[in-house]
Amino acid sequence: VAHTSSPATVTVALDAMGGDHAPTEPVRGALAATRDDIRVQLVGDRSALIAALAAEQADESDRVQIVHAPEVITSAEDGARAVRAKPDSSVAVACRLVREGQAQAIVSPGHTGATMAASILYLRRVPGVLRPGIAVILPNPEGPVVLIDAGANAEARPEHLRQFALMGRLFARDVLGVASPSVGLLSIGEEGQRGSDLVLESYVLLQGTPGFIGNIEGRDIPARVADVVVTDGFTGNVALKLMEGTAVFMLEQVRAAVTSSLIGRIGGLLVRPSLRAMREKTHPDTYGGAYLLGVGGIAVIGHGNGRSRAVTNAIRLAARGARNDLVSRLAEGINQENHDPAEAKG
Amino acid sequence: VAHTSSPATVTVALDAMGGDHAPTEPVRGALAATRDDIRVQLVGDRSALIAALAAEQADESDRVQIVHAPEVITSAEDGARAVRAKPDSSVAVACRLVREGQAQAIVSPGHTGATMAASILYLRRVPGVLRPGIAVILPNPEGPVVLIDAGANAEARPEHLRQFALMGRLFARDVLGVASPSVGLLSIGEEGQRGSDLVLESYVLLQGTPGFIGNIEGRDIPARVADVVVTDGFTGNVALKLMEGTAVFMLEQVRAAVTSSLIGRIGGLLVRPSLRAMREKTHPDTYGGAYLLGVGGIAVIGHGNGRSRAVTNAIRLAARGARNDLVSRLAEGINQENHDPAEAKG
Repeated sequence: VAHTSSPATVTVALDAMGGDHAPTEPVRGALAATRDDIRVQLVGDRSALIAALAAEQADESDRVQIVHAPEVITSAEDGARAVRAKPDSSVAVACRLVREGQAQAIVSPGHTGATMAASILYLRRVPGVLRPGIAVILPNPEGPVVLIDAGANAEARPEHLRQFALMGRLFARDVLGVASPSVGLLSIGEEGQRGSDLVLESYVLLQGTPGFIGNIEGRDIPARVADVVVTDGFTGNVALKLMEGTAVFMLEQVRAAVTSSLIGRIGGLLVRPSLRAMREKTHPDTYGGAYLLGVGGIAVIGHGNGRSRAVTNAIRLAARGARNDLVSRLAEGINQENHDPAEAKG
Repeated sequence: VAHTSSPATVTVALDAMGGDHAPTEPVRGALAATRDDIRVQLVGDRSALIAALAAEQADESDRVQIVHAPEVITSAEDGARAVRAKPDSSVAVACRLVREGQAQAIVSPGHTGATMAASILYLRRVPGVLRPGIAVILPNPEGPVVLIDAGANAEARPEHLRQFALMGRLFARDVLGVASPSVGLLSIGEEGQRGSDLVLESYVLLQGTPGFIGNIEGRDIPARVADVVVTDGFTGNVALKLMEGTAVFMLEQVRAAVTSSLIGRIGGLLVRPSLRAMREKTHPDTYGGAYLLGVGGIAVIGHGNGRSRAVTNAIRLAARGARNDLVSRLAEGINQENHDPAEAKG
């Protein structure tokens, strides 16, 4: 575990070549994120980054530094293979900065698979963690909901889900500031007697773990019935994309309905500012990224098509995890659970 | 297979004691559904049904007949067990009316598990069908999307998904009138190389089947990338409830945003009629029910908390399946697939 405890200034290594709008949006997002307590290392092609900084009327400074990385992994490549083939890619170099203690967190707005593969390869796993899981934060005006695993593992076993519950809960508590987070197991009935074989077995294994409130259903996620939603990476990824797609669909329907009549259009002009504010609050860019929990450093996977705001928020989210020493807390939690599961209960 | 081909008048057996608002809403919905070509048998407690008809200023007639059933299955009961324990329950009697040829379709707005169990017990499976699947119709202003399986089987094998694809496609074509329906396999990446083991194997098995367009992601469902979405019952049920929950959530957010300012409230009054019309078009009650495909008769499972409009629409949806001889077409399709899979391709 490379990072130090509660550093005054957190240094975040940003894969500035990652994502659909690199390096412009990552650089812009980095500049907005830096302040007294956040420093950013822009990792990528030096000349491209100098140009992107210049376009923002900025330059390398105490707060924004360029770390040259000659290679880039594109979205068309297979993540795991590309990371092994390109040790000097921006995402790989950024991860090594964390491993070597020069940065306390890595953020990549790029390729999810490559970010995962590079994080696992260079940061390794927290001792005792069976499988890292992607913890995504679902924006909700009444408070965040954490969904884990949002796609790191297409197949999972009950003991993985038990660790996801533990890690997701510590993340919600120590990074998002949720007091005593509740944990729900995503299923298709509340009774604990319906569900896939995985869910039925996981339900038994989760009994008595901190915060566990039992099974929840799909509709309970937006209703915030649980602070942390535990599921396998296949279901979690389908669920995440479905929520995003349905939210977009509903807003399109609202827009189409409103603009279908003259009176509606007038009304639409009046409600537009409120709707825009609402959209901000429920937009995926609100948090800007997802944590890969269970690797030996803070690793945040940003939205590949996110704009600078998403990058800024992802950097801030990463800094919060570093400042709160999340990786050490996860290591302690997993260690306690593995050595004395009874102790961890209650 | 009990029903006759293209009957002039379709008789639908309605479990009038099913659902949260029975018998009032089922009776009201039945009265609205009857017309020259639809006759409804109200199945349930005779005196309760006479009273419910009287409350609507109606009486038994050529179009609405009461069939007495002394027992009721409540939502608290386990469906499969209750169906076996209560052979004279309204849902069981309604299914037997179909088996005996007195009705061409059964509709229950009640207990999903009980309706499934009674349909399978009394109507049996279409020969060659491995597992019946629930085909739910997702309302979309641009045309329906069929999701199968929406929860009949928490575990599934690739050969089940292949049959769901076949049955879902025939349903979309012959009941919903979709020309050449496209079929997508719900997964977490479009490449056919990502996904759970089930999806990876099913992808191979679905290659070359009619209409198959490959993997689709969660966000592609509301975007109508495929007319028919194939998945296992666990994922399908989570997805269905998540879409409903997210739609409700977004509309609540719109409402809250609009009413948060005076100008917004004025605008809100102006857009309200358009939003209401939009809500109608995207509301689950639009179709009122889901088909249980693969049993030897038309069986429609309504929304347990649906109002009379949902019941009316479910009855009409059931009548359409009976009139288009769906069960025979499924039997032919499955038979052809099982005996000459190559022939069915293309």
